[in-house]
Amino acid sequence: MSDLPIGVFDSGVGGLTVLKALQAVLPQESFVYLGDTARLPYGTKSPQTIIEYALNASDLIFKHHPIKMLVIACNTASTLAYGAVCEKHAGLPIIDVVHPGAQAAVSTSKTGDIAVIATEATVLSGGYQAAIKALNPKADIHTISAGVFVALAEEGWVDNEVAITAAEHYLKPLLHHENKYHPDCLLLGCTHFPALLPVIEMVISEKIAIVDSATATAMAVAKVLSEKKLSSSSKQQSTDFLVTDSPARFARVAKQFLGVELQESDVHLVGF
Amino acid sequence: MSDLPIGVFDSGVGGLTVLKALQAVLPQESFVYLGDTARLPYGTKSPQTIIEYALNASDLIFKHHPIKMLVIACNTASTLAYGAVCEKHAGLPIIDVVHPGAQAAVSTSKTGDIAVIATEATVLSGGYQAAIKALNPKADIHTISAGVFVALAEEGWVDNEVAITAAEHYLKPLLHHENKYHPDCLLLGCTHFPALLPVIEMVISEKIAIVDSATATAMAVAKVLSEKKLSSSSKQQSTDFLVTDSPARFARVAKQFLGVELQESDVHLVGF
Repeated sequence: MSDLPIGVFDSGVGGLTVLKALQAVLPQESFVYLGDTARLPYGTKSPQTIIEYALNASDLIFKHHPIKMLVIACNTASTLAYGAVCEKHAGLPIIDVVHPGAQAAVSTSKTGDIAVIATEATVLSGGYQAAIKALNPKADIHTISAGVFVALAEEGWVDNEVAITAAEHYLKPLLHHENKYHPDCLLLGCTHFPALLPVIEMVISEKIAIVDSATATAMAVAKVLSEKKLSSSSKQQSTDFLVTDSPARFARVAKQFLGVELQESDVHLVGF
Repeated sequence: MSDLPIGVFDSGVGGLTVLKALQAVLPQESFVYLGDTARLPYGTKSPQTIIEYALNASDLIFKHHPIKMLVIACNTASTLAYGAVCEKHAGLPIIDVVHPGAQAAVSTSKTGDIAVIATEATVLSGGYQAAIKALNPKADIHTISAGVFVALAEEGWVDNEVAITAAEHYLKPLLHHENKYHPDCLLLGCTHFPALLPVIEMVISEKIAIVDSATATAMAVAKVLSEKKLSSSSKQQSTDFLVTDSPARFARVAKQFLGVELQESDVHLVGF
């Protein structure tokens, strides 16, 4: 059982930043990553549709590989479908990205003033706001919808003038003294955004600590593996990549997020 | 028959720029617009998937309304699925956005040096290149993939500093004297891009004429209606909006593209 891989799914490539953090924290583990690229992005779809897609995606991983644990590496699916996926796969340890991210932000912030930057869908869903409030009811939360960051990360424009100008537009309001909010912590609530970390760090004040849901999620997974004695003792590690459409595009865009090149032959097309 | 509406479909909101051009050129006509928002965007999906989605979308319009003509207001679907949609609905006049756009660019360009700016998927599909070459085999075509423009248009960042910087990144290479290409015509090959027209005009030289597929498509539709004696004589015009998911988001984002506000109640959710 403990030598089985950990399943990870996202609507596309963004969840690869979570996989990258998992591989860094848990180098002895094997992974099966599913990108539901036939239906990406989830963020613009309705709650009912997102729940249906997330259940399909988790079923699809099981159809191809037995796994010992599941990570929902998509903010939208985490917010809207975590309960439904847990119910469907009762007994399997399941970790999402929102709760660990919120936990890390609450632990990091000394003042309780927390800024969350995410896609419009994640902000509108209220998932991070609810998760932070559950841990610190006095938290003062300021949200920023940053849809253009997703396109910049996918285009590979992560450190050019366009990225800097966009980061200034989104983040400078946090730094103005006349603002109501003076956050001491910025939570990156979208799996695409770690790709833009250098630019985000350049624009915001050093007084604001940056918390990344991907790393927080990897730490949460490590804790559960240890507690449940599910850590792998195998000397052979593997990572399988499954997609529901366009292996070529997935392989091409993956490097921005995973940090290493993928070949088209590394990525396997699977059907529902 | 001639008083029936014209069907228009796209994966989402982008095709509303085509609808806007149609309404401007053909104020006496009624329209049924379908945004296949449960599956948007088409541009990142595989050819087989896009053909399946486009056939489903055209069927869905017929299921809800008899129409006298169909407009494929999506560059990706136009390039990959035009033949399949025509075959499925033999006898119905069907206009795509790629052929009229290519025709307008070839007519406008005096030198035959034509630049095409579009999404990565449209550029990679080669649809515009083939359509232009079919009309002018000597044409010299320079393509620009501009995925960030789509996000900027959806964010409503159509005239701020980020939009200007992005337009400079994408378009300045056309203006350098040391370049191989010196286009005298720039074809906007993505339905989102007319929203960014003021910024595009600001950045490029006045020597480069801008051709917009949306307007070219509306002119092509007007010509077919006239030739086939299908123009409406009704005094009542209507436009129905159908979506396959999230009427609220569609209504919210629509204004950037259609130029007028939509209420959520104007947009009807339909299922396959």
